[in-house]
Amino acid sequence: MKKYIECPFPRLFPSQLEKDDNFYMQLAYNESISAWEQDEVPIGAVIVDKQGEVIASAYNQTRKCNDPTAHAEMLAITMATQKIGDWRMNECKMYVTKEPCPMCAGAAVVGRLKEVYYAYKDPKMGGLGGAISLHELPQSNHKPIVNIGVMEKECLQMMQTFFQLRRIKQK
Amino acid sequence: MKKYIECPFPRLFPSQLEKDDNFYMQLAYNESISAWEQDEVPIGAVIVDKQGEVIASAYNQTRKCNDPTAHAEMLAITMATQKIGDWRMNECKMYVTKEPCPMCAGAAVVGRLKEVYYAYKDPKMGGLGGAISLHELPQSNHKPIVNIGVMEKECLQMMQTFFQLRRIKQK
Repeated sequence: MKKYIECPFPRLFPSQLEKDDNFYMQLAYNESISAWEQDEVPIGAVIVDKQGEVIASAYNQTRKCNDPTAHAEMLAITMATQKIGDWRMNECKMYVTKEPCPMCAGAAVVGRLKEVYYAYKDPKMGGLGGAISLHELPQSNHKPIVNIGVMEKECLQMMQTFFQLRRIKQK
Repeated sequence: MKKYIECPFPRLFPSQLEKDDNFYMQLAYNESISAWEQDEVPIGAVIVDKQGEVIASAYNQTRKCNDPTAHAEMLAITMATQKIGDWRMNECKMYVTKEPCPMCAGAAVVGRLKEVYYAYKDPKMGGLGGAISLHELPQSNHKPIVNIGVMEKECLQMMQTFFQLRRIKQK
């Protein structure tokens, strides 16, 4: 068995009394730790319904599943639509620990998510404002609202540390 | 049981002796008929390995699965990567009966497909040249080659007829 680098960040225990954007992003952050623990790039996603109920929660599993479509957001979107029994998530919000790639951003559009919250921009491959803006395609019949910056520092630090430690280990 | 409109187009039986782009697109076309027969928007996709072996073949199942990510291309990509045991499809080509949406175009990029062949452009929501060009993101570390026009007329006619008949039925 390969020995993985241990995640140096502890899980968070947000108060159930205040279910704000920060609360849901903390749950997504915990999912990103689950990814790390499986030696996956640490990205987590959570989807919440109109009532603020968490209907999906997932982490990146690309490596484990050998599947490039197994990003946290994609798994969460499939999970959420199965839960609500509808492929349209008009009343739902997704929280992700980084800006979704074009595939996941496209899934947010075709899945008609009402809003997407992500922690920090990805100028290289971000699909919701960073590299390209798939939520603003002129002729699209759905344009999710995009919110940036919840837990930006913590989520960015998680990602940067993961790659720093991986590089050190590879030397 | 709901009565669906029957697909007026017959399946094709391409010769196994000439496995060219037209051959593979005919297989994708047959997949689009399978979609129609399930009352799904008729889109089919096929993925072929370096040796020209078909390693995945799928049709759109968004409606049946209640899942916005269940596009033909996404299902084919997952199937292909499971078959080759690698999330990188560097030596593979995908054939699709219409231009992939941004989600599926993004999946072709993150899945590192060598080439994508599609029958006709979608100026409204096409992700590989029609509405936006996800295969040309400046900082992307993979840029699939895109080929347009194989069986353009037949595939476009299939799609247009599907929506024409659906509109007539709804009246």
